[in-house]
Amino acid sequence: MSALDFVVAARDGAARTGRITMARGVIETPAFMPVGTAGAVKALTMDQVRATGADIILGNTVHLMLRPGAERVARLGGLHRFSGWDRPILTDSGGFQVMSLSALTKITEEAATFASPIDGSRHVLSPERSIAIQADLLGADIVMQLDECVAWPAAPERAAEAMRLSARWAARCKTAFGARPTQALFGIQQGSTFESLRRESAERLIEIGFDGYALGGLAVGEGHGAMVETLDFAVDMLPAERPRYLMGVGKPIDLVEAVARGVDMFDCVLPTRSGRHGQAWTRAGPINLKAARFAEDERPLDPTLTCPASRDYSRAYLHHLVKSGELLGQVLLSWHNIALYQALMSDLRAAIAEGRLEAFRRAFKAGLGADPDAASS
Amino acid sequence: MSALDFVVAARDGAARTGRITMARGVIETPAFMPVGTAGAVKALTMDQVRATGADIILGNTVHLMLRPGAERVARLGGLHRFSGWDRPILTDSGGFQVMSLSALTKITEEAATFASPIDGSRHVLSPERSIAIQADLLGADIVMQLDECVAWPAAPERAAEAMRLSARWAARCKTAFGARPTQALFGIQQGSTFESLRRESAERLIEIGFDGYALGGLAVGEGHGAMVETLDFAVDMLPAERPRYLMGVGKPIDLVEAVARGVDMFDCVLPTRSGRHGQAWTRAGPINLKAARFAEDERPLDPTLTCPASRDYSRAYLHHLVKSGELLGQVLLSWHNIALYQALMSDLRAAIAEGRLEAFRRAFKAGLGADPDAASS
Repeated sequence: MSALDFVVAARDGAARTGRITMARGVIETPAFMPVGTAGAVKALTMDQVRATGADIILGNTVHLMLRPGAERVARLGGLHRFSGWDRPILTDSGGFQVMSLSALTKITEEAATFASPIDGSRHVLSPERSIAIQADLLGADIVMQLDECVAWPAAPERAAEAMRLSARWAARCKTAFGARPTQALFGIQQGSTFESLRRESAERLIEIGFDGYALGGLAVGEGHGAMVETLDFAVDMLPAERPRYLMGVGKPIDLVEAVARGVDMFDCVLPTRSGRHGQAWTRAGPINLKAARFAEDERPLDPTLTCPASRDYSRAYLHHLVKSGELLGQVLLSWHNIALYQALMSDLRAAIAEGRLEAFRRAFKAGLGADPDAASS
Repeated sequence: MSALDFVVAARDGAARTGRITMARGVIETPAFMPVGTAGAVKALTMDQVRATGADIILGNTVHLMLRPGAERVARLGGLHRFSGWDRPILTDSGGFQVMSLSALTKITEEAATFASPIDGSRHVLSPERSIAIQADLLGADIVMQLDECVAWPAAPERAAEAMRLSARWAARCKTAFGARPTQALFGIQQGSTFESLRRESAERLIEIGFDGYALGGLAVGEGHGAMVETLDFAVDMLPAERPRYLMGVGKPIDLVEAVARGVDMFDCVLPTRSGRHGQAWTRAGPINLKAARFAEDERPLDPTLTCPASRDYSRAYLHHLVKSGELLGQVLLSWHNIALYQALMSDLRAAIAEGRLEAFRRAFKAGLGADPDAASS
């Protein structure tokens, strides 16, 4: 048995629902992974995260290697013990982070070299070092290959070059990773929004062979329309029998559209970042709790959710906390947003299992902006 | 029966332990009240506060009258419903806040006038308005008289003037408050560190008659020694059969010394403020989690406490959160500090009940600074 056992329980069009079984726990799919950048899902305790229904969280290799340091996390027993999350953790490889963190990043065939935004120190991240950090030092359950991620728009030649380097790094990652009884390795498809490059990328990854396949290089500025158009051809290129993971996505509507196209896993900082900035996600879109119209609104954010932050606090109180700069406002809105995302994934799983995803998607799109309090985003 | 039933269960020297029974719940004394300045105990949910053992919290009248506004809180069902804390709440009267918030405060026989630090608008706080805000609009369980609090050091004439104005305001507050079936009113002793003024203040308050008596005008810069010397004569001036409340105090050692002198109730922002600044209180003193020596320290803050923040996270992880500016660090340290304070009050109650307070106090003082990680503060 593989370190990652993926069973599809039901299909509805291109969408599927199922479960990933790993040594540290089961992940119901489609799954949303809250982002615990530096060993913490910002503002929330792991108990609060788990209570929303999250089965797996994500950690950022680059953040953790810079602070507190991967060797230090290893000496402290690994990322699970360090952070207090005992279920599966997926770590990114650092490819996207080195692109976005630093203008001083240099990429060669051998490795990426970048400057720490904390102290300016230079660091080298090779495919082998990324695997050692993720698999050996942090102890991630799902390890991502190191890739080169290009910004959007990218010229076809530039996108091809980065995709091919990513494919060569994928092979080096696979070799460095070897075979592990409880840890899985995912490859990352690149190729920007170009169909032929996405196909070549997928073929090269499949030839190497991974436990799961991610779609990288999206949500980098191309917008919802171009992303969905890319998914229209790119998802099917990845093996149907393995989990497919759309990296760094997204808004609720992005998740609905991607699930409908066969994606199984997501991660995004949006729910926690929005929560720290006074924004609550609802099924109808995001609402800005700073708005004066909430000052005496006694309704909770969403009484249908079991999350205390969604159910037990009035919008008037949350408005007050946000206006007053109270930390509790950031805590409660982050918590609610993660709960709303998990509820959406649960709804999507149920809709697929019951063969009514298309109706769910139509109703979801019709509901966007139907609440006068929510932006139709 | 009074709105506030106070039963002393045991005495040990001047110290006593007992319980205050009110409509919304029982308060075990000596009691520490976490400060919920603007309707939230900063960074913590009310469930987290309650889980530490807190029986009562404090709200700040001036903060709440400025934002979201006392009438707004009333329209939203009062402070309990607004904040989600259904147990007793004590509100301060605003006397100390108008002194500390604004250089533009003007005090006349009639009222205090002050400028909002939020928008510079002018506000008037009279004894009658303070009672209306606390008792009618916020719906506090324990209401404090409006007082004039002077800074330290104060000339005897200035301290006497403020004490006598406070006494006249006490009488007006009593008249405005009237008799209420479920709400209690406390008078506030003033007189700086002068024994004769403290005595005159106590006598005037007792003549008016209150459900409880506070010691005001301490912890305003006089230091631990002068505060304790003042308590040596001031506490006994207040009726033994009513709760005695030392306002705005303090460090753990302050609480131990004040309890030994017969004080029953305390409030202080220190545990939450310290927590937001990377400081954790321990029985041996405060420790600064930014210090590099905690970077690989796997010990929790205090495994003897049931609070998850005290028991389930390593100092290394907390060090990392503080160094990384993660909000979760502020949450966990605030939570631990409140739990440590509640544990200290529980220890004091047990020591008094078992007639070993003097031994407890000696051991507590001997323990300060005995941990090389803690400052002997």
